[in-house]
Amino acid sequence: MKNYTIHFLPHEKKIQIPEGETLIRAAIEAGVHINASCGGEGVCGKCRVIIESGMVDGGISERLSDEDLEKGYRLACQSVVQEDITVRVPVESTVDASVLNVKSTPRQTARIQQMDLNDLKQQGLFVPPVEKKFLELPQPTVEDNLPDVTRLVSYLKLQHDEHHLMVSLPVIRNIPDILRKEDFNITATLERPVHEGRKTDIIHIQPGDTTARNYAIAVDIGTTTIYGQLIDLFSGEILSENGDFNAQISFGEDVISRIVYAEKPGGLEKLQQVVVGTINKIINKIVRRAGVDKDDISAITLAGNTTMTQLLLKVNPRYIRRSPYVPAATLYPPVKAVNLGIELNEHVSALVYPAVSSYVGGDIVAGVMGSGMYLTEKLTLFLDIGTNAEIVVGNREWFACAACSAGPAFEGGGIEFGMRASKGAIEDFSMDPETLEPMNICIGNVRPKGICGSGLIIIVATFFEMKIINNLGKFDRDLETPRIRQKDGIYEYVLAWKDETQIDRDIVLTEVDIQNLIRAKGAIYSGCITLLEEVGLSVKDLEHIILAGGFGSYIDLERAMVIGLLPEIDPGKITYIGNGSLMGAKMSTLSNHIRRNVAEVTINMTNFELSETASFMDNYVAALFLPHTDIEQFPKLKERMKN
Amino acid sequence: MKNYTIHFLPHEKKIQIPEGETLIRAAIEAGVHINASCGGEGVCGKCRVIIESGMVDGGISERLSDEDLEKGYRLACQSVVQEDITVRVPVESTVDASVLNVKSTPRQTARIQQMDLNDLKQQGLFVPPVEKKFLELPQPTVEDNLPDVTRLVSYLKLQHDEHHLMVSLPVIRNIPDILRKEDFNITATLERPVHEGRKTDIIHIQPGDTTARNYAIAVDIGTTTIYGQLIDLFSGEILSENGDFNAQISFGEDVISRIVYAEKPGGLEKLQQVVVGTINKIINKIVRRAGVDKDDISAITLAGNTTMTQLLLKVNPRYIRRSPYVPAATLYPPVKAVNLGIELNEHVSALVYPAVSSYVGGDIVAGVMGSGMYLTEKLTLFLDIGTNAEIVVGNREWFACAACSAGPAFEGGGIEFGMRASKGAIEDFSMDPETLEPMNICIGNVRPKGICGSGLIIIVATFFEMKIINNLGKFDRDLETPRIRQKDGIYEYVLAWKDETQIDRDIVLTEVDIQNLIRAKGAIYSGCITLLEEVGLSVKDLEHIILAGGFGSYIDLERAMVIGLLPEIDPGKITYIGNGSLMGAKMSTLSNHIRRNVAEVTINMTNFELSETASFMDNYVAALFLPHTDIEQFPKLKERMKN
Repeated sequence: MKNYTIHFLPHEKKIQIPEGETLIRAAIEAGVHINASCGGEGVCGKCRVIIESGMVDGGISERLSDEDLEKGYRLACQSVVQEDITVRVPVESTVDASVLNVKSTPRQTARIQQMDLNDLKQQGLFVPPVEKKFLELPQPTVEDNLPDVTRLVSYLKLQHDEHHLMVSLPVIRNIPDILRKEDFNITATLERPVHEGRKTDIIHIQPGDTTARNYAIAVDIGTTTIYGQLIDLFSGEILSENGDFNAQISFGEDVISRIVYAEKPGGLEKLQQVVVGTINKIINKIVRRAGVDKDDISAITLAGNTTMTQLLLKVNPRYIRRSPYVPAATLYPPVKAVNLGIELNEHVSALVYPAVSSYVGGDIVAGVMGSGMYLTEKLTLFLDIGTNAEIVVGNREWFACAACSAGPAFEGGGIEFGMRASKGAIEDFSMDPETLEPMNICIGNVRPKGICGSGLIIIVATFFEMKIINNLGKFDRDLETPRIRQKDGIYEYVLAWKDETQIDRDIVLTEVDIQNLIRAKGAIYSGCITLLEEVGLSVKDLEHIILAGGFGSYIDLERAMVIGLLPEIDPGKITYIGNGSLMGAKMSTLSNHIRRNVAEVTINMTNFELSETASFMDNYVAALFLPHTDIEQFPKLKERMKN
Repeated sequence: MKNYTIHFLPHEKKIQIPEGETLIRAAIEAGVHINASCGGEGVCGKCRVIIESGMVDGGISERLSDEDLEKGYRLACQSVVQEDITVRVPVESTVDASVLNVKSTPRQTARIQQMDLNDLKQQGLFVPPVEKKFLELPQPTVEDNLPDVTRLVSYLKLQHDEHHLMVSLPVIRNIPDILRKEDFNITATLERPVHEGRKTDIIHIQPGDTTARNYAIAVDIGTTTIYGQLIDLFSGEILSENGDFNAQISFGEDVISRIVYAEKPGGLEKLQQVVVGTINKIINKIVRRAGVDKDDISAITLAGNTTMTQLLLKVNPRYIRRSPYVPAATLYPPVKAVNLGIELNEHVSALVYPAVSSYVGGDIVAGVMGSGMYLTEKLTLFLDIGTNAEIVVGNREWFACAACSAGPAFEGGGIEFGMRASKGAIEDFSMDPETLEPMNICIGNVRPKGICGSGLIIIVATFFEMKIINNLGKFDRDLETPRIRQKDGIYEYVLAWKDETQIDRDIVLTEVDIQNLIRAKGAIYSGCITLLEEVGLSVKDLEHIILAGGFGSYIDLERAMVIGLLPEIDPGKITYIGNGSLMGAKMSTLSNHIRRNVAEVTINMTNFELSETASFMDNYVAALFLPHTDIEQFPKLKERMKN
C-alpha cells in the first residue's frame, strides 16, 4: 500500500499515512487536534479543514456551504487521502496545541512480531510434522510378492531414507486399491513422531503424485471467537482464514458460565458439539475459499484456554472453577480429528496445545511457542490481556507464569458505555487542553455507540496527562466546561452529545468507569510485578515484552504506561503478536521442532497461583493509582508530568 | 480324573484308561480286536464280552438274553468303566490276534505341548502387556494443585517406578470423577509398549483397588470355527472358554469363497460384521460364565489366517487369491476393539497376530509363539494340517515357512463318506486279519454316519499294513470277503452295512477316496520335504515336530507315518499343541515378551511359494505312493512290512 505525506498547517507538521486513510486519523497520528465529537461520521461538522494542495476523495457534507467548498473546505473525518496533501486547520476547528507538543508523540503501537518463514527455513526448523513422499513402486511378481504395506515401507526406506515406519489401519484398508490405481505410483503422507527415534506413522496414501498438495489447519478456540487458517505446508503460506463467534456463547459469556453449563446433564456434550460446529463451519469456509481438496489436508492443530480445550475434548471441566483449581490434564494425546466430530478425513490427527494450569492454557503456550519466545535468550515478559490476563516471564532456560482476573473492563464490561472493539466504538481520542473539547475517532468512521478497551486507555491517559483527573481517577472539581458534570452524585465527562451519537444518549465516561479501569490495570500490573518478584526479578531486568491477544494489538503503548497498565519500558522493546494462540497453532503445523519442544516447555513452566501469593494483594493495592502509588516506577512519566 | 486298569482275557493284556471310557475304546487302545461295525451304539451286537471281575455301568442291550446277562455278557461299546475290571473276549467276538501283536502297539498320540505358566514365571516372562497398579494419591490442596493426570503420572513414577507414561483421551475424560469417587484411591491399567523405551499407555482408571481383577480375552478366528478364552492375568488361568461356528460360513466354506464374497458390493462389510458377531457372542458367553465385570477386561488378542484377519480388519482381501498372492499387510497396528465392533470397553486394544504371507497367517505365527518354538534351540518342524497345510521349519535363529493346498480330504471333503470330526464319524478302526471284519469306533459312541480325517488315516494305514491295498492304494483283487467289492467299476471296502449306520446306506471307502487321501498326504509330505531342502536340510536333521490344529491332535502318529503323511521320526519327538492359534493368542496376553518378539519373528520368517519352487512338483509326484515311492525314507515301516 502506498503512503502519502500529509502536511498540516499552521502546525507545520508532516506525517506519512497510507492511502485510503482519513484526514482526521492523520491529524490524530500527527498530534494535531481537530474538534470532532461524532466519531467520524460527518454529523457534527466540527472538523472543517482547508485543502491547500492536492486532492482528497469525499469530505463534502451538508454541513459545508457551496462557498465553503469553493474555498477548499472539507470535513476531515470524511476526506480520504489519495495523494500528498497540504491541509490547513482553521482556527474554529483547533487551537494552538503547542502546550501538548512535548507529550503528543505519534501513537505508538508495538511492532509486530512473528517467526518468519525464512528464518524458520534458515534455522532448519521448517519441517512440517506431516510430509508427503512420492514413490514409483515396482509391481509385484511371483518372485517378489511382498505384502503391499511391506513394499511401501521398504521403498520409503530405500528411496527416502525413512525408518521406524508404522502404518495405520485405514492405510492398510486402502492400500490394495490405491496402489493399483496408478500403476503402483503412490504418495504417502508421513506423520513425524514428536520425539526422535519414535515411530513415524504412514497416515494416508493417495494414487499418483500429490506431494505439491499438502495442507494443514490451525485453529484458535477463543471463549468468544474462533479463528481458523488453512496453511500450505509446501510453501508455508496461509491460503485462507476466517473467524466466527464461538457458538458456545449462547451457553454463557465466560469460561465460568460455560463450566456451570457443562455440569448440567448433557451440558458437556452440548458444548462440545457446538464448538465443533463452529470449527467445522470455519474449516468448510476456508477450504472452499482456497479451493483445496479435503483429502489433501493432513493435520489440524488447535489451541485454546484450558476450559475451551477440555470442552473440545469432552473432558469435564468441573474442577477448574473450584479451589484448588485442578484441571483434568494439561498434556493431551493426539486424537483423530473425526473422533472429535471435526469434519476432516479419518487420517487427520488433531493436535491440541498443552496447558500449564487451569488458567494458563494452551492459547498462552501457543503464544510462547509461536512467537519464538521459547527460543529467546532475552528475559521476556509475555502478556495476554483479556478478562483474564495471562503472564509468562522467562527465556529459553526457564519460564514462570500466572493468571489474574482483570475483569471485563478492557472488553467493555463494567464501563457504562463500554463495548467490544467493533463499529462505532471510540478507539482514539484527543482533547483540546483549553476548551476540553474531544476529538473522537470511532471504528468504521461512524457516529459513536460506546468506548472500546483501547479507546478507554487513551481517554483516561489523556485525562490524566491533561490533569483533569488526579492519580485517584477523580475529576478536577474546579474545571468549568459543560463536558464535565455531576449526575446522580457521580462526576463524568461527556464524550459525545446525544445528537452526535448513534444511541440518542450522551456518551460519558464516569468516575466509576475510571475506577473499574484502574482495578483492571492494577490487577494486570501487580500480576506482572508479583510474578517478577517471585522469580527474584524486577521490571528493569526485562529485555522484551510481547503483547498477545487481539486487544494487545490495539494498545497505545505510551498511554498504557501512562495509566500504569504496562511497566514503563522503552516501547522499542515491546512487540505484539496479535492472536498468539492462532500463530502458535499455525507454527506447529509448519515446524515439528515446535511440537517436539512444546511438552518440555509446558512441563518446565512454573505456575504461580497469585491468589496464594501473599505479596500479590499488597502489589495490587499499590497499583490502584494512576499510574501507581509509587511514581518512581514510572520515571519518564514523572518527568513529563512535572511540566 | 481317575484311571482304571482293564485286564483283557485271554490276551492277558492290561491297559489303564480313564473313568467313564467304554470297554471297546479300551480294547482298541490295548490292541485287542473285538468285532464292531456299528460304531459304538449297540446296534450290531457283535462286541459281546464277559465281565469276569469288577462292575461296568451299562452294557445291557436287547441283543443280550437274560441268560447272557446272567453269565456276565455285556456289549463292550455300551459298557462304561468305573472301576478295575477283568474282561474276557469270547471267541465269537474276536480271533487270535497274535499275528497282529508285533505291529499293534497302542495308539500313539503326540504329547501335548504348552508353554507352562510356571516356566513362564521362572523365566521372568509372565509379564502381561496390561497391568494394574493401585495408588493412594494425596488430595490436591492450594499448595499442590497438580492437574489430575499429572498427579497420577507423578505417583506412578514415585510409587511404582513407572516411566514414559502416556494417557489416553478416555482416561482424561474420566479422571476428574473417578479420582474423587474413592478419595483419590485409584487403580490404573497400564498397557506396556511393544518395544522397550517406548511409551507405556495408561488406558484405564478405576476407583479403589481393582488390581486383583484383571482379565484378557484370546480369540482364534478359524475359517470354520472361532474359539475364545477368558484369561485371568493375575493368576494366568483360563476362567472360561467357548467355541462356535464362524458365522461367515453362510457366505462360503473356505477362504477363497469368502474372498469372492468380499469382492461383491457390501460383501466385505457384511463379512466383517458377521465375524465380529460371532466373536461378540463368544465373548459375552465366556464373560457371563466366569462372572467377571467387562470393565475389568483389559486386552484382547486375536489370531487367524491372513484372510480371516483381513476380513476382521475390514481390509479388502481381493489380491490374496490372485497371483502373485499379495496380502495388504502382514503387521497390523493395535486398534481399539470398539472400532472393530467388538463389545468391550473403549480402552481395550485389540492386538491382532501378524501374518507372514497370504497363506501363512497369524494363526501359524501364534502357534510358533505360543508353542515356544520361537525360543527353541532344536531344529523344529511346525505343521498345521487342514485344507491348507502350513509348514514352518527353524529354531530361535531362523524360520522358513510355506503353505500348500492339501485339499479338503482331512476335513471330509472329496471322500464319499467323509465328514468333519463330529458325532457319528468313524475315528478309530481295526480289522480282523483273518475275516477282514472291521471294528469301528465313532465319535460320541453312536452309529456311524461317515469317516473323519483321523479315522481315514487309521483305516488306510490298517489296509496298507494288512496288505489289502498296495502302495498305489489299490485293493488286492484276490481277497474273498463281502467287505471288498466292486461297484460301478470302482473297488471299495464296506465299513458298515446300512442297517448298522445312521444313514441307511452302506458306508464304504473307495479307491477314489484313497487316491484323494494320497494326494492330500502327498502334498503335505512333499511340502515339508521341499521346504527342508530349500533350507539345505532333510528329515533326519529334525529334532522336533509340532503338530497344530484340531486335526493334528487326533492324528495317530504311527499310522500317519505308515501312509507317509508325516516323515518317519521317533514319535517321542513329536508334540501337539491343539489349537496353536488360540494358544498363541492366550500366551501373548500373558507375556509381553511374546508381543515384543512376534514382529521380529514374523519379519525374519522367510516365506517360500511352493508353487514357484521347481522341486516341489517332483517331490509331490514321488509322494503319491504309500508311504512313498522311496521306501528308504520310511525304514522302520519297511522293516515291519517285511514280516
